[in-house]
Amino acid sequence: MKLSEREIVGSDFRYPIELHEDFVGLSEKLKNLKKVSQVFVFTNREIAGIYEKYITKELKNSNIPFHFIYLKAGEKNKHIDRMKKVYHQLIQAEADRNAVIIAFGGGVVGDFTGFVAATYQRGVRFVQVPTTLLASVDSSVGGKVAVNVDSGKNMVGAFYQPEFVFAPLFTLSTLPKKEWSCGIAEVVKHSFLDGGTFLETLSKSKRSDFSEKSDIVRYAIEESVRVKSQIVSQDEKESGLRAVLNLGHTTGHAIESLTSYKKYSHGEAVSVGLVTALLLSKEILGFSESNFQKAISMMNQLELPTVLEEKPELVLQHMEHDKKKDGNTLKYVLLEDFGKPKFGVPVERKMILDILKRHKGMKLHG
Amino acid sequence: MKLSEREIVGSDFRYPIELHEDFVGLSEKLKNLKKVSQVFVFTNREIAGIYEKYITKELKNSNIPFHFIYLKAGEKNKHIDRMKKVYHQLIQAEADRNAVIIAFGGGVVGDFTGFVAATYQRGVRFVQVPTTLLASVDSSVGGKVAVNVDSGKNMVGAFYQPEFVFAPLFTLSTLPKKEWSCGIAEVVKHSFLDGGTFLETLSKSKRSDFSEKSDIVRYAIEESVRVKSQIVSQDEKESGLRAVLNLGHTTGHAIESLTSYKKYSHGEAVSVGLVTALLLSKEILGFSESNFQKAISMMNQLELPTVLEEKPELVLQHMEHDKKKDGNTLKYVLLEDFGKPKFGVPVERKMILDILKRHKGMKLHG
Repeated sequence: MKLSEREIVGSDFRYPIELHEDFVGLSEKLKNLKKVSQVFVFTNREIAGIYEKYITKELKNSNIPFHFIYLKAGEKNKHIDRMKKVYHQLIQAEADRNAVIIAFGGGVVGDFTGFVAATYQRGVRFVQVPTTLLASVDSSVGGKVAVNVDSGKNMVGAFYQPEFVFAPLFTLSTLPKKEWSCGIAEVVKHSFLDGGTFLETLSKSKRSDFSEKSDIVRYAIEESVRVKSQIVSQDEKESGLRAVLNLGHTTGHAIESLTSYKKYSHGEAVSVGLVTALLLSKEILGFSESNFQKAISMMNQLELPTVLEEKPELVLQHMEHDKKKDGNTLKYVLLEDFGKPKFGVPVERKMILDILKRHKGMKLHG
Repeated sequence: MKLSEREIVGSDFRYPIELHEDFVGLSEKLKNLKKVSQVFVFTNREIAGIYEKYITKELKNSNIPFHFIYLKAGEKNKHIDRMKKVYHQLIQAEADRNAVIIAFGGGVVGDFTGFVAATYQRGVRFVQVPTTLLASVDSSVGGKVAVNVDSGKNMVGAFYQPEFVFAPLFTLSTLPKKEWSCGIAEVVKHSFLDGGTFLETLSKSKRSDFSEKSDIVRYAIEESVRVKSQIVSQDEKESGLRAVLNLGHTTGHAIESLTSYKKYSHGEAVSVGLVTALLLSKEILGFSESNFQKAISMMNQLELPTVLEEKPELVLQHMEHDKKKDGNTLKYVLLEDFGKPKFGVPVERKMILDILKRHKGMKLHG
């Protein structure tokens, strides 16, 4: 059953993000696309193990020939080296320009599959069927697709929009705890950028409210998609405003990199990074103490990590490694208030170090 | 010195194609682009061996840091396997989103470089500096960039437009005879699609008129760019009309493939294929005998190959290999008259074979 729908509109595209209970209705959507020759479902074995039979049952209703192409799970397999094999599989199956590729999985599947779709025969249509909260609220909006190369993550990619996003919420029932945190952290980030009712509603919820059937999850996805799409539609190619979506990411990336991408999921690292950004916002832009307390209390209720456990000096080093040096400062996304982000705020290294030290020393659990 | 300029306009792009005597003026054009951090010149050793010192002298005038990245020459190196190394070189040189990549060479350099530019960090700006007649009249218009995979040519790519095309005509002075033929064949194809004055003027010229300084070359490039851009602007993503640019290509591809891409350059194969297409046009669309004679006489004067030397049965087999089978027919681009192409014309295999046999038996040299 379709639960809700929002249209994403850009200068040269327009597509719906639909939340559904399960896969029912996907075939109808595919049949509404013009002249589809074949459908290719890109997924990984873990997801296929649980859901292949269900999506297969639905796809049979479309009467369009379909195939599964299995990717290896995990960020390290979102790699340019993995592309050749997949292109070869498409060619072997005689996929032509009227083929449609479905990205069925989380962000890794979505990024990789989207880039294959963007480049196979100079671009074939693709569809996102996200199975994680993060993919539903984040990679489903904005059209960023990419793969990694040895010398950098997401260094090779494109801006490429799907025909539609079809989020089957029942797949969240098998989402591991760490993946829930990852998605909730992005939701919280979006609520900080937006302020207003979204933030208020979220601040009254607690972690145990989040499940595949809860109203708050549906609401959180709908609102996150709204916030992100408003930002992205003003800056499709990421030349300015879109930078605000990196709130929490400067520290987040540094602690991810510092811990070799093992200790934290991306969302968990961003969660810790949000706290550093709020501390800097208090110091530099007059973000209020009461708002800061509200944010921490909300993150605690949602069981997101807030404490900085890494050495401040090392965190700063990894930031500098990550960022282009611009004299003695690094550029941050900060908040004047909830709903009032500023990007490109220069912050001196000394102040960053002081704030990181303060962050590390804080007793943040309620 | 700038010789001429034409603007190419699409739904979401607009860029000029400029013909110049030499490299003078390139720096000025680069300086007019916004916020360029670094310039990367992609070329091959052969071209660099002759022209690197000249282009270097000009680029120094821009005061923008620039680097050369050397590609291996030849179609077989326009391969996806070659991309990783180049991305790595860009990352090592700290190329950011404000980098500009120049494709300095022929079609192979342009296709490969354009696809790297389209995908590095989800797209950086690129500039074409074509050094062959074919690249000047063909790949400089239309935004098609691509690389090969083992199982197919140009199977992976994008539609990606340059900031500008800067054609330094003096580089044609070192163009080998076979490459001249290759470019002239495309020019002739464009004149068939256009008819009118372009065709008339070309039919009065002969091969010895073609040199880097001749008016006819400049005119042929300008007119070819006009014809192709008119077609492409009506069908940017190649879903219909753009197919007319494949005039001569069905037979052309077949004889290229049949002779393992060794005997003919692409343009030479297309040249032979044009004759097959005209014979079919006479048979099916009433293309006149006098027009046919005019075309052959023009191609002879321009010293383009017209005679079919391969076995008709084998040519047909290789067409079927190349094309999607649609019952008993293959789809052709044919001409009702000069300037009146029709695409997607179904032709029965039996008729194709008959025409190929007639083509092979013809005495076409004047």
